[in-house]
Amino acid sequence: MNDSAASVVRNPEDPAFWRERRVMITGGLGFIGSTLARRLAELGADVVVVDSLVPEYGGNIFNIQGFEGCIRVNISDIRDQHSLRALACDRELIFNLAGQTSHLDSMHDPLTDLSINGTAQLSLLEICRQNNPSVKIVFASTRQIYGRPQYLPVDEQHPLNPVDVNGINKLAGEFYHLLYNKVYGLRAAVLRLTNTYGPRMRIKDARQTFLGVWIRAVLEQRPIEVWGGEQLRDFTYVDDAVTALLHAAMNVRLEGQAFNLGGDGTVSLLKTAETLVAIGGGSFSVHEFPAERKRIDIGDYYADDRAFREVSGWRPKVSFEEGLRRTLEYYRHNLNHYL
Amino acid sequence: MNDSAASVVRNPEDPAFWRERRVMITGGLGFIGSTLARRLAELGADVVVVDSLVPEYGGNIFNIQGFEGCIRVNISDIRDQHSLRALACDRELIFNLAGQTSHLDSMHDPLTDLSINGTAQLSLLEICRQNNPSVKIVFASTRQIYGRPQYLPVDEQHPLNPVDVNGINKLAGEFYHLLYNKVYGLRAAVLRLTNTYGPRMRIKDARQTFLGVWIRAVLEQRPIEVWGGEQLRDFTYVDDAVTALLHAAMNVRLEGQAFNLGGDGTVSLLKTAETLVAIGGGSFSVHEFPAERKRIDIGDYYADDRAFREVSGWRPKVSFEEGLRRTLEYYRHNLNHYL
Repeated sequence: MNDSAASVVRNPEDPAFWRERRVMITGGLGFIGSTLARRLAELGADVVVVDSLVPEYGGNIFNIQGFEGCIRVNISDIRDQHSLRALACDRELIFNLAGQTSHLDSMHDPLTDLSINGTAQLSLLEICRQNNPSVKIVFASTRQIYGRPQYLPVDEQHPLNPVDVNGINKLAGEFYHLLYNKVYGLRAAVLRLTNTYGPRMRIKDARQTFLGVWIRAVLEQRPIEVWGGEQLRDFTYVDDAVTALLHAAMNVRLEGQAFNLGGDGTVSLLKTAETLVAIGGGSFSVHEFPAERKRIDIGDYYADDRAFREVSGWRPKVSFEEGLRRTLEYYRHNLNHYL
Repeated sequence: MNDSAASVVRNPEDPAFWRERRVMITGGLGFIGSTLARRLAELGADVVVVDSLVPEYGGNIFNIQGFEGCIRVNISDIRDQHSLRALACDRELIFNLAGQTSHLDSMHDPLTDLSINGTAQLSLLEICRQNNPSVKIVFASTRQIYGRPQYLPVDEQHPLNPVDVNGINKLAGEFYHLLYNKVYGLRAAVLRLTNTYGPRMRIKDARQTFLGVWIRAVLEQRPIEVWGGEQLRDFTYVDDAVTALLHAAMNVRLEGQAFNLGGDGTVSLLKTAETLVAIGGGSFSVHEFPAERKRIDIGDYYADDRAFREVSGWRPKVSFEEGLRRTLEYYRHNLNHYL
């Protein structure tokens, strides 16, 4: 962070900003949502989490264990516009993290993906425009909107070319937020996330990232199955992602635009498996990529997130090794709540 | 057209291709859809038109007057998936032209726009994938997906940056078609249309293009109201657009990609008004742009459609003056059917 940037960047955990701040988190019992909810509760915010607890998605009531008294939980679906209208009307800030995240599910059931990632998003924006136009919204988008990278690292000017239904619908969801910011002054900031990982991530299956099932394999002392291996990825530790979301909420210079969020360098799938095994024990085997996944795979991906870093002063604080260590440690104690 | 291109380009009106060809046209009672239906009926195709006849959209049963015996009309909404499934299952070709086209309507009722331009499109593709995977689909997209041009003329590599809900949803609709082509081999071609005009266009209001209300003003001997005036546009005469759609249907080299379709040069709004008045009589007045439209206006736009011309050999045949002359002539005889 250079000095001139530092001078205008506010501490993202400034208690004066967060104390009693009325916040809603959609998808708030999910992996990132619940980590954010816990952080905000610690900072003194008035937090409502909204989650459908659809079993295939990431919501898990255990994720807010220990915070039951200071986080208000509302079980409802973001497709339920009546519920959302009632919940959103008095909020100052909405972290809009609810979504269908599985690329394969989006191909097998594209209309459900659209209803959640497209229609429900537009509906929430309409609710806010009509009932709470002074609210600020932070929307979690995804690298998936870029599709197969045409160059690396991928910056925000990269062509938008989603390669699955999920990517198309997330792109529409992102565009809606930016449009409502521009046309109606409904303040919105968009972060395009890459592979976020850490405690409370879904490890039951690969619906959030492949890393989840790898972590589970290590914990259950089964060999990790590496499909391909050469592909490069960047990972964001969940606490760093949450700090980035706090920046997006507070910093007016992040409004009306979409920013990439990356992590602490680049790592191949093979190297990921090696690191995981070095920390957690076990073994891995390497396999050829199955055809069904190959058709929608994007090859290497890593983000250029210099624009976000420049404006916010954000830097990742947790290295990949340290993040994996903390994640394995968490699941060693809590595995039974995630299977 | 250079010689090497000419040698591989088929006559888009080749009767051997079209005779008894089983075709469906969604939005087939609309402006472009009905003009296409009439042409295909003349070429001997087996034509089903599907149209909801929603009063605010372009459908008009009068548009196929004289062709009642050789065009099968099915009144249904593209959001009615049961109807679409039954109608689509035996078709060899679908011209998918149904859509909500009004930019202002898309802002006033964004969820309806999404249900028609997004959800119904994805649903139709799923129907075809499951029930008629050998069908070929030609999808009518729009310049609106580019938003405010960053350079001119706008080619297909121009950033995608829609400035209204309609543009976002049309972009998603386009992406779905290209994705299904790529992942499932469901053949699809996409044309991004600019301002199409001609006989049978909607002149009751500005829901299709501003040119409609101008034509009506000339016919009713009221002054044309020009908002702004300097903005440049390109126009495609409807018969030329229909020929382009026939190319898109026949030419395998147009599959799996989106192509711009432009017209016969560029013209300012002021020059458009002058030309119209020179041909049809009357007068015009120039006004400042209203704020609501300005927020979603895109400034100058004209397409670089060289890629489409190169692959197809298509060229516009009707000049802007001649097209306006034919249009005014049509409405002088049929105005009462369009008010």
